[in-house]
Amino acid sequence: MQNNSVGIVVPQDFSFGQTDEDALCLDCGKKLKYVNIRYETYGKLDSSSSNAILILHALSGDAHVAGFHSENDRKPGWWDEMVGPGKSFDTNKYFIVCSNIIGGCSGSTGPRSINPDTGKCYNMDFPVITINDMVKAQHRLMVHLGIKKWLAVAGGSMGGMQAIEWTISYPDAVDSVIAIATTSRLSPQSIAFDWVGREAIMSDPKWLEGNYDDIAPEDGLATARMLAHITYLSDESMYQKFGRNLQESDKYSFNFHRDFAVESYLEHQGQRFVERFDANSYLYITRAMDYFDVSARAGGDLAKAFSEVKSKFLVVSFSSDWLFLPKQSKEIVRALLSGKIDVTYCDIASVYGHDAFLLEAVTLGKLISDFTRNRYLEVQND
Amino acid sequence: MQNNSVGIVVPQDFSFGQTDEDALCLDCGKKLKYVNIRYETYGKLDSSSSNAILILHALSGDAHVAGFHSENDRKPGWWDEMVGPGKSFDTNKYFIVCSNIIGGCSGSTGPRSINPDTGKCYNMDFPVITINDMVKAQHRLMVHLGIKKWLAVAGGSMGGMQAIEWTISYPDAVDSVIAIATTSRLSPQSIAFDWVGREAIMSDPKWLEGNYDDIAPEDGLATARMLAHITYLSDESMYQKFGRNLQESDKYSFNFHRDFAVESYLEHQGQRFVERFDANSYLYITRAMDYFDVSARAGGDLAKAFSEVKSKFLVVSFSSDWLFLPKQSKEIVRALLSGKIDVTYCDIASVYGHDAFLLEAVTLGKLISDFTRNRYLEVQND
Repeated sequence: MQNNSVGIVVPQDFSFGQTDEDALCLDCGKKLKYVNIRYETYGKLDSSSSNAILILHALSGDAHVAGFHSENDRKPGWWDEMVGPGKSFDTNKYFIVCSNIIGGCSGSTGPRSINPDTGKCYNMDFPVITINDMVKAQHRLMVHLGIKKWLAVAGGSMGGMQAIEWTISYPDAVDSVIAIATTSRLSPQSIAFDWVGREAIMSDPKWLEGNYDDIAPEDGLATARMLAHITYLSDESMYQKFGRNLQESDKYSFNFHRDFAVESYLEHQGQRFVERFDANSYLYITRAMDYFDVSARAGGDLAKAFSEVKSKFLVVSFSSDWLFLPKQSKEIVRALLSGKIDVTYCDIASVYGHDAFLLEAVTLGKLISDFTRNRYLEVQND
Repeated sequence: MQNNSVGIVVPQDFSFGQTDEDALCLDCGKKLKYVNIRYETYGKLDSSSSNAILILHALSGDAHVAGFHSENDRKPGWWDEMVGPGKSFDTNKYFIVCSNIIGGCSGSTGPRSINPDTGKCYNMDFPVITINDMVKAQHRLMVHLGIKKWLAVAGGSMGGMQAIEWTISYPDAVDSVIAIATTSRLSPQSIAFDWVGREAIMSDPKWLEGNYDDIAPEDGLATARMLAHITYLSDESMYQKFGRNLQESDKYSFNFHRDFAVESYLEHQGQRFVERFDANSYLYITRAMDYFDVSARAGGDLAKAFSEVKSKFLVVSFSSDWLFLPKQSKEIVRALLSGKIDVTYCDIASVYGHDAFLLEAVTLGKLISDFTRNRYLEVQND
């Protein structure tokens, strides 16, 4: 364990919605009861509770953003490079919170949770949730933690969508936003990729209309994940990482097993994913992403949708990201500027594609630490 | 039926390889016996047999490039806009040949053909074939038809790969080449998409290691096709064609059926494809594309691989094609130029992505007719 690690962290749970009045009202019109939120915190909340930062995870992430779960745990949290003592999200200074989204499969209530009405897994009886629903649940956690206003809400990819959603749903609760490699709405191409991934899962006979038990639809989920992985890399990074290199031999096998290094990589990613992720969650989360459209609440006018926003923005895109393109970030920036909302924008030159938000830690880290420090100083001086 | 249609065409068959000596020697080291080639011809071969053009089809194409198969046939051949009396490939002037590739499922010998050694379908006992093998089979057809030299060989996408292969394998048999939206080798990204498509097919339990009977692995094949279709369109054309439009209602359904127009489109494409295409063929043909690498035969030196080429080239790419990118066409052009091979190159500005080779008939048609006419005049004057 390095010196700048947050060390061992203990996941926590917060439950709400035990009564009908306390249940979470969802965009689909249904109510979600007995909601659990799995979360982790790092650092200490200061006496004025002005140093709290919420980190939002992406599709396959979880609440475990930094540190380790035990002495023997070899794999740190998913953004450990960014969160810790002296790091960009400096836990000596800030109180960091990260929670697993509802609909997820890493501790928070999702399709594989028990439906209190039936005593069985929800599976496909779980209501279709939205990014807004995820944020509403996070807001309950915020109240529970006694935080009035986040110094920052920050996230990449789907985490960035949640961050943006926060500024609109709770304009007074967010001092600043760090929205990385994200979009105010998915392109039809992204919707199409999500569709194909879900079709792969739902046409796997082991899916059983979502009612699989121990035998999960692993083939379908692996196919969905492999497909998604292609969209996380860039054409250029794939040339750099794999080229047309063969994996096992210097000759073609003339069969259909993995010949190319890129095939081995995908197979490995698919296999690793099914060990840790739930197929039904994958359906629900991708659907939430499809449905996300900030402008829709203002008749398609993004600037108007931002009209009540009070937060300062840091928007970051990556030049080779073709899943959530720089032009989609620029669309957000233009809409914010037209409403005279304070926004800092940077398109980081990177070959890593969408994955850059996890890989360009040095450049991204500097942007984030500067932005957050400035916000912190200003809030302290208010 | 329009006036400029070739009218009703009758598919023909050419068989060879009835003896061991006559069998097709494949790149994998095996021999293919009792090979059938399904082909169609349009126009008339002139007395000097100097007006013959070979059109090569892409992954899901077939020999039926133009015209109709019967009076009631409503759907013309796949490149009917380009092939006919007075069209770019003018059948009043040229003798056009198009044959279904070996490995295919539209009349030529492929994995669903009978293995003469067993009396049963080859299925996965069919040898893994290459683009070069396809061209070798086409060369047999050429000899059978009494053609000494093609005025042009022309194709888009995988058809372009075959066209390029012709110039290297049979430099004396090709006066000119029209290589459209193609590449001298697949990028790792394209190999990755092919891998995921094949995984979708091979993980469909109905695939049965390729030994399916009447009940084909339609779900897997549809998933593969839907995925491929995304790569045939461009981000921009998907915005133009679908945007985030909903198909059935003006509200989200909050379920997992098709909501978005782009989802309906993909589902429709997937369903149409499984009605006409064979899953095992899909595996073999995509593998052939993966393996294609012109430069590999010269230690990675593309220009050197072209050193024996005697054909004139027309190379065409489309600005928004992200499957076979303009830069991949330019790589071919640069290699040809470095060997002082005559090449005309055009990158057509188009929003249609890879599909542009089927959709930009006007612009493409003019390029092709001019190029071919010039070649024809020169050959006549020789």
